[in-house]
Amino acid sequence: MAWYNTKANDSDVVLSTRIRLARNVKDYPFSPLLDETGAGEIIEKVKSSLSGFELIDINAKSYIERRSLVEKHIISPLFEKTKTPGALFVDKDEKNAVMVCEEDHLRIQSIYPGHSLNEAFKSACAIDDTLDSGLCYAYSEKLGYLTHCPTNLGTGMRASVMMFLPALTGTKMLAGYASQLEKIGLTMRGTYGEGSGSKAYIYQISNSVTMGITEEETILKLEGVVKQLIESERKTRERIFTSDPDSMCDKVFRSYGTLKWAYMISSDEFLKLWADIKLGADLGIIKDIDDKKLNQVFVGAMPATLMLDSGEGDSSDTQRDKLRADYLKRQL
Amino acid sequence: MAWYNTKANDSDVVLSTRIRLARNVKDYPFSPLLDETGAGEIIEKVKSSLSGFELIDINAKSYIERRSLVEKHIISPLFEKTKTPGALFVDKDEKNAVMVCEEDHLRIQSIYPGHSLNEAFKSACAIDDTLDSGLCYAYSEKLGYLTHCPTNLGTGMRASVMMFLPALTGTKMLAGYASQLEKIGLTMRGTYGEGSGSKAYIYQISNSVTMGITEEETILKLEGVVKQLIESERKTRERIFTSDPDSMCDKVFRSYGTLKWAYMISSDEFLKLWADIKLGADLGIIKDIDDKKLNQVFVGAMPATLMLDSGEGDSSDTQRDKLRADYLKRQL
Repeated sequence: MAWYNTKANDSDVVLSTRIRLARNVKDYPFSPLLDETGAGEIIEKVKSSLSGFELIDINAKSYIERRSLVEKHIISPLFEKTKTPGALFVDKDEKNAVMVCEEDHLRIQSIYPGHSLNEAFKSACAIDDTLDSGLCYAYSEKLGYLTHCPTNLGTGMRASVMMFLPALTGTKMLAGYASQLEKIGLTMRGTYGEGSGSKAYIYQISNSVTMGITEEETILKLEGVVKQLIESERKTRERIFTSDPDSMCDKVFRSYGTLKWAYMISSDEFLKLWADIKLGADLGIIKDIDDKKLNQVFVGAMPATLMLDSGEGDSSDTQRDKLRADYLKRQL
Repeated sequence: MAWYNTKANDSDVVLSTRIRLARNVKDYPFSPLLDETGAGEIIEKVKSSLSGFELIDINAKSYIERRSLVEKHIISPLFEKTKTPGALFVDKDEKNAVMVCEEDHLRIQSIYPGHSLNEAFKSACAIDDTLDSGLCYAYSEKLGYLTHCPTNLGTGMRASVMMFLPALTGTKMLAGYASQLEKIGLTMRGTYGEGSGSKAYIYQISNSVTMGITEEETILKLEGVVKQLIESERKTRERIFTSDPDSMCDKVFRSYGTLKWAYMISSDEFLKLWADIKLGADLGIIKDIDDKKLNQVFVGAMPATLMLDSGEGDSSDTQRDKLRADYLKRQL
């Protein structure tokens, strides 16, 4: 089951966990300089090494199909826009994927629901080992894995945890955490990678350092921070709720009513309402929705996934906002 | 059936119609100077003349019971606060009532659902005739019925129609109508009598002149204006709706969702939401609520009626706002 179709550990605070490994194949230029022949050869090598993965020709996919893959975090925004030959290998539950000819030749990704750093890491390592035996990685004893961007040199690993932190955001404690994280080689960002602001109180906590540290040390450090954030978020939620339960119930139920009854809902408004309802469900205010359902609608209400699943072509904003409202009415 | 429990003529635009006749009994001082003995005598006389009416000792009623009678438009705000002996005679469907020792000795009132000027007028006249034969009214050939306040001299009649004009309000055409009305001896006011602003787009259209004009002429003039306002309001609603049906549907359904799901709703917010939903129901956007139900909840959600029907004592604002939300959830 994909991360967004599953209930998982600490799902009240952690939406998903992702491990991404950047790898390049020896004797080929980096992706931006790679010609079609080279790209084709690498794709073939990956194909013959991996079993149980479906090969998707990313260039053959429509704009809306590629956007939907981004919304599901299966491909990166960069890969969505690629003009050069690119292939995506994805396993049947969409937990594991390999992007070929993204910024690096290979981007191995394991994305798991909830708080699952070790699980995701093991899964990514298994794919990495398989590929390593079929391909010859570009590797230096001094620098570690060679990557197109120097910020990935070393382990080539980005471990990230997507956290839902509405209570900490509300109390402004988050800014303090964020600056502390920077000091220990971790970073906190909005939902869809660098530069994007936080929507729906969702933050990505990940490592910013890939050199001079092992993968295991990185994960251990991240794990410690995530545990601390989970505990702090839970305590803060409880404190806010018990200090004024009426206001919290009112906010949650109003958002629920709007989500169920509105005739049109924009993507941004949806995220705000979704956040209220998730908080309400996690606090036990709303009983008939669980985190699994919330993950499903979170992805299902995203613009491209919504259009794709509805079978409609490209539509106006109004049309899409109406489809979103219809979708939510059916789901909730 | 009381006005708020009935569906009636033109109920999309007209909520209720009221005729009020001010009368005083000869040889007794006006109410403010009337002693207990005098008041008792007048109450007895009314009691022996009227049949089919229940006598309510207004002084024996609790604050909340009296407030509820004001909310149902059965008694006036002035009568609610009366300290001197006062009696209310009311028939079983609450359409007809006589307040004894309000500003005048007698205030005869007939309140009917929807657009029913002639019906209400006939009903009030029948009570007036009955009382006239048992009591001797203070009357002058020159001035007509003598009343405590000179503004009621003459016919002593106030005919008023409670109209729901959301579309005209939105387009600011209403100010034009209001100033035209003044010129022909009519007036437009907010929901609960003089001085109060309009809540929920509800306006009371009534005559301001009681001298030099007969009751029938007054009603004919008012009838003409009401018909014009009904037509104008309906056309404007249609124009607004057809120019942007999506926005209208969205507004209506959001208000419906909030009314069904909020955990606390203040009286003022309720009126705003109610107005959206009534407009939506009258335009056919919401199918499962009719004007009768809307009239019921309009009165049922008023502060005092709400508390009275819930059987709760005097409560905090928060408590009442929660009760209101519960009540609306059950009703809708």
